Amino acid sequence: MNVRVGVIGVGMIGQDHIRRITHVLTGGSVTAVNDVDAARAGQVAAVLPGASVHATAQDLIADGNVDAVLVASWGPAHEEQVLAAIGAGKPVFCEKPLAPSSAACQHIMEAEMAAGRRLVQVGFMRRYDAGYRAMKATLDDGGIGAPLLMHCAHRNPSVPPYGFTTDMIISDSAVHEIDVVRWLFGEEIAAASVLRPRRSGRAAADMQDPLVLLLEMASGVLVDDELFLNAQYGYDVRGEIVGETGTVALADVSEVTVRTANRHGGRVPVDWRDRFIRAYDAELQDWLNAVAAGTSAGSPSPSSWDGYAAAAVTDAALEALRTGQRTAVSMAERPEFYAK
Amino acid sequence: MNVRVGVIGVGMIGQDHIRRITHVLTGGSVTAVNDVDAARAGQVAAVLPGASVHATAQDLIADGNVDAVLVASWGPAHEEQVLAAIGAGKPVFCEKPLAPSSAACQHIMEAEMAAGRRLVQVGFMRRYDAGYRAMKATLDDGGIGAPLLMHCAHRNPSVPPYGFTTDMIISDSAVHEIDVVRWLFGEEIAAASVLRPRRSGRAAADMQDPLVLLLEMASGVLVDDELFLNAQYGYDVRGEIVGETGTVALADVSEVTVRTANRHGGRVPVDWRDRFIRAYDAELQDWLNAVAAGTSAGSPSPSSWDGYAAAAVTDAALEALRTGQRTAVSMAERPEFYAK
Amino acid sequence: MNVRVGVIGVGMIGQDHIRRITHVLTGGSVTAVNDVDAARAGQVAAVLPGASVHATAQDLIADGNVDAVLVASWGPAHEEQVLAAIGAGKPVFCEKPLAPSSAACQHIMEAEMAAGRRLVQVGFMRRYDAGYRAMKATLDDGGIGAPLLMHCAHRNPSVPPYGFTTDMIISDSAVHEIDVVRWLFGEEIAAASVLRPRRSGRAAADMQDPLVLLLEMASGVLVDDELFLNAQYGYDVRGEIVGETGTVALADVSEVTVRTANRHGGRVPVDWRDRFIRAYDAELQDWLNAVAAGTSAGSPSPSSWDGYAAAAVTDAALEALRTGQRTAVSMAERPEFYAK
Amino acid sequence: MNVRVGVIGVGMIGQDHIRRITHVLTGGSVTAVNDVDAARAGQVAAVLPGASVHATAQDLIADGNVDAVLVASWGPAHEEQVLAAIGAGKPVFCEKPLAPSSAACQHIMEAEMAAGRRLVQVGFMRRYDAGYRAMKATLDDGGIGAPLLMHCAHRNPSVPPYGFTTDMIISDSAVHEIDVVRWLFGEEIAAASVLRPRRSGRAAADMQDPLVLLLEMASGVLVDDELFLNAQYGYDVRGEIVGETGTVALADVSEVTVRTANRHGGRVPVDWRDRFIRAYDAELQDWLNAVAAGTSAGSPSPSSWDGYAAAAVTDAALEALRTGQRTAVSMAERPEFYAK
Repeated sequence: MNVRVGVIGVGMIGQDHIRRITHVLTGGSVTAVNDVDAARAGQVAAVLPGASVHATAQDLIADGNVDAVLVASWGPAHEEQVLAAIGAGKPVFCEKPLAPSSAACQHIMEAEMAAGRRLVQVGFMRRYDAGYRAMKATLDDGGIGAPLLMHCAHRNPSVPPYGFTTDMIISDSAVHEIDVVRWLFGEEIAAASVLRPRRSGRAAADMQDPLVLLLEMASGVLVDDELFLNAQYGYDVRGEIVGETGTVALADVSEVTVRTANRHGGRVPVDWRDRFIRAYDAELQDWLNAVAAGTSAGSPSPSSWDGYAAAAVTDAALEALRTGQRTAVSMAERPEFYAK
Repeated sequence: MNVRVGVIGVGMIGQDHIRRITHVLTGGSVTAVNDVDAARAGQVAAVLPGASVHATAQDLIADGNVDAVLVASWGPAHEEQVLAAIGAGKPVFCEKPLAPSSAACQHIMEAEMAAGRRLVQVGFMRRYDAGYRAMKATLDDGGIGAPLLMHCAHRNPSVPPYGFTTDMIISDSAVHEIDVVRWLFGEEIAAASVLRPRRSGRAAADMQDPLVLLLEMASGVLVDDELFLNAQYGYDVRGEIVGETGTVALADVSEVTVRTANRHGGRVPVDWRDRFIRAYDAELQDWLNAVAAGTSAGSPSPSSWDGYAAAAVTDAALEALRTGQRTAVSMAERPEFYAK
Repeated sequence: MNVRVGVIGVGMIGQDHIRRITHVLTGGSVTAVNDVDAARAGQVAAVLPGASVHATAQDLIADGNVDAVLVASWGPAHEEQVLAAIGAGKPVFCEKPLAPSSAACQHIMEAEMAAGRRLVQVGFMRRYDAGYRAMKATLDDGGIGAPLLMHCAHRNPSVPPYGFTTDMIISDSAVHEIDVVRWLFGEEIAAASVLRPRRSGRAAADMQDPLVLLLEMASGVLVDDELFLNAQYGYDVRGEIVGETGTVALADVSEVTVRTANRHGGRVPVDWRDRFIRAYDAELQDWLNAVAAGTSAGSPSPSSWDGYAAAAVTDAALEALRTGQRTAVSMAERPEFYAK
Repeated sequence: MNVRVGVIGVGMIGQDHIRRITHVLTGGSVTAVNDVDAARAGQVAAVLPGASVHATAQDLIADGNVDAVLVASWGPAHEEQVLAAIGAGKPVFCEKPLAPSSAACQHIMEAEMAAGRRLVQVGFMRRYDAGYRAMKATLDDGGIGAPLLMHCAHRNPSVPPYGFTTDMIISDSAVHEIDVVRWLFGEEIAAASVLRPRRSGRAAADMQDPLVLLLEMASGVLVDDELFLNAQYGYDVRGEIVGETGTVALADVSEVTVRTANRHGGRVPVDWRDRFIRAYDAELQDWLNAVAAGTSAGSPSPSSWDGYAAAAVTDAALEALRTGQRTAVSMAERPEFYAK
């Protein structure tokens, strides 16, 4: 079966997913697009044979030629669009965040529960990364004993000098670790704290960069996450889980080792696409496969609950950033509907 | 466009390519199969919606529902099948070897030249491996200066005690390095020699395992290739090019690093599929894309000429194995048709 | 010149230093020993040609045959013994801690200042480790820009089930990082906090193991130090400094890489002696050289001030452990006498 | 006991050993020096308290103030000087080569056997390198099964454009691998061959650089040794033993890992002293200890027999270089006197 996908939002991320569905993955094609910038939508559709352009997200969702919806619009629009897709009974892949507020995420969960089946996958792609998957397999196999600590680092070479705020280090960057540690450890995050190291002179004047986010899992596992958005030297995502009898860490990713000029070593990725391109491919292929099969994607597919939980932890982390205090995460009970 | 592929030979490799086309790659589907074992062909086709089973390879090639042919039969059948596909004007992907003898490969080249366009891609998948590609990019960028030497190792955990001969170490295993060094250095191999190290007690009694194949490139670059088919510890393919100002080597492939029991380190792949799965995906996607575009795949796609050259070097290496002497490679001139 | 060393305290550490002076280093010999256990002192002296045994530390210090004093007794005895050596005008190497309380360390500084010359070296051997030295060289060369963060881990395979308290994780283990970060960054520590991750089931029931010590340098550089005394898998000391433009980390220490059983990798040291044996050699050789030259050892030799600072930070860290609060370090001004 | 050492030859190597005995090692002092350049001898002695300068090597050897002799003169003088030391019954440490011809080495063995005790240690320092020692321990522990192959590389950044001949690549550089593989595998080398890869444009016009030396051990273990004297990028010595069930390789030597400018990695040593300084220290300390104990140094101390064997293999390798043919090593039987 070929899944006919309608894409809402055709900015950088949306276009990348369209390229992926069209040229890389199997079992899907893009049949409709919509964007707040109608001209951009038209340009994108022009090179997609047979794809229609819709004036509104609602029209796209209602299109009989659309089996499933991919939401890549800006965050504030997600709630309405995802709810509309659920209302139409169509599977929806929603880029992170599911919605900017945990209340909005709850509305989505309620609608999905009312619909009676899982229709939503959230774009937390790290769960599909070969490194994190091998890490989880090692952990789950008992190879390092019960987990106690995790050390993370999330470094970008740079962010634009204007427009990227300290809050966004939490909501846009740390949210990836927030999701992935929930998945790795199979439990919720109970509290968050934020530490403020010496600021880099390369960061914008009003930005606390780097910062360290501390996450306390329900079991007591402590996660420290260094977030450094202006690290200059490359895009580097690292993680090490410390267990009772050993540790497991993401390996360096470099295809070759070079020896020149009294140095030996490998390369560091230049950006997040370079690092996670195969994870993006895998998450969307998993979604297409599930849609084609008429089921929701199973593990490790992130659900609305995962989107909600990430939003709730993000809220706590932002509060911790503002107040300087350890902040407990306020979360609803996990509905049976979202049991693993 | 969807490329309708007919698959000749549905043993392990053929079935793996069918899985790939059906579930992993984009732009192709398997519409016909043939095998010397008709029952096996039927079983494979049974789970491919709409796929027909043909009694002969010729029937499959003639099928109007087949746009392109994938040859995964045993080596001695390749020549006839590839010639038939060329005769039918259909693109053909042929698993290595293109044909067991260099004379047979020449017949294929002649037929292809007579047909007036490139129709054949040979299954040397290493050119599509991210490691070798990064190695070639480093070399071509001048980062290590002109190449002088290359050290290779090609280790399998084990081969069956019966049926795998010393000759096959050259023709089945070393042929991968034979192709990949031609591609890496962009030149032909001029001579081959074989060295006989101490035999492993884990090898069959009549097998010279490990052995070392020496390849002399036209420019004088010397390649030493350790072939060890019963290396026990894993499937390990390694390579280091030594240039005038530096070296580049394939990096270890392990997603994570584990620290337990006074050891730190990563995993070694268990077999060739584990190691090269993405290269297999990439070579066949490249072929499907080229077929869909109505062109032959460009670089790094291996052509009939590459299949012929590998066969000619294999002949020299087998002669060197038999005689214990350095053996010059006997090869025709490269036709303009196969200019890069 | 041959430095005649008197050793006070001939337990495990003392005997190891005696072996070092006698069989490994140059320019020194052990001519006198003392221990609270007179029998043990006698046994040790028996194999040291010409060495005398003294009933008291004071007698040993007064011995005309002793040029310099090495204090390897238990911590509570250090203050009196070091003061006596200073009083006798003899150089003294004192194992860490210089003294258990910062007040005692201040007494030693006062005596040393009164004596008018630097006579004391404290046994913080990590400053002499090739890894930390290369790390500092990289930092000082500007290769990674201004430092912002440091991540440390200090893991022991295990500690005895009785007698090793949570306080000792700070005072015995973390004190090494406390000293080394002061030296690496060339500045004092302003505050300490302690985090309590999930406890390991391998730790004694009343022990908080692992724990994380946070140290804030005067400049704002933030150090997180994972201390894990029952890590099982080996003795592993790790560190990574994150600067404005790059990072520098201690490399794994393994002489060889082994590939067996689908794994590749190196060894992790079994204990602290295995890891730091050359640093112990280097610190004591540096001391002997300085004594022979009639000077105090220069950089990186740890002084009384360094011993005092470590004690003051240890006090703050222990307070943070007790209260769960971030605790400012209370320290005297650095006397000009101890300027770098 | 303090060993009074007389040093013959105070060029770069001789001075380095004097520095080592005087400032690094324990149990020895330099009491006499001799050099063909008397002025240089005088300058060196001037900073050695109490050291005398002798006009001839014979005078130095006869000096009652000299317990043991270190020969660091040029190769052609070694035979006469070592024989004189043996004649005087004094232990002698002789820099490699023991003597330039195997016949000369035999004279030394005969004299030593006539003297009735082992008096000679040859300066093959790699046996004392921590990497090679760990490699041998892994091999001897059975961790990788019986050895079958060894891959070596020996790369120098550069050699002077004049005066360093292709022969010297064998006699000065490869001799280190010749000795170390004999020691690693505990057996003799049966034959040698030389391969000529593409020449580096950085090498002198009449120099075959790089070259590959093949060594066949008596058991059939095959060693390939890449020798590259103008490798530009650093001083890099590598080795991997391939056994029946695994491999063991020298690890990269770098104290730290740096991440900057999209690269991660470590340093490559700048020269042989940087790489092997601790091995030089250890070999000479071992010698001093043995002399002080009145014994010859045991394993891994290289004996006259080892010096002879290295010379015999060097002869065969030079012959192979000249003729292009595989050349059997011509060696005497190992006398019982030199049994391990």
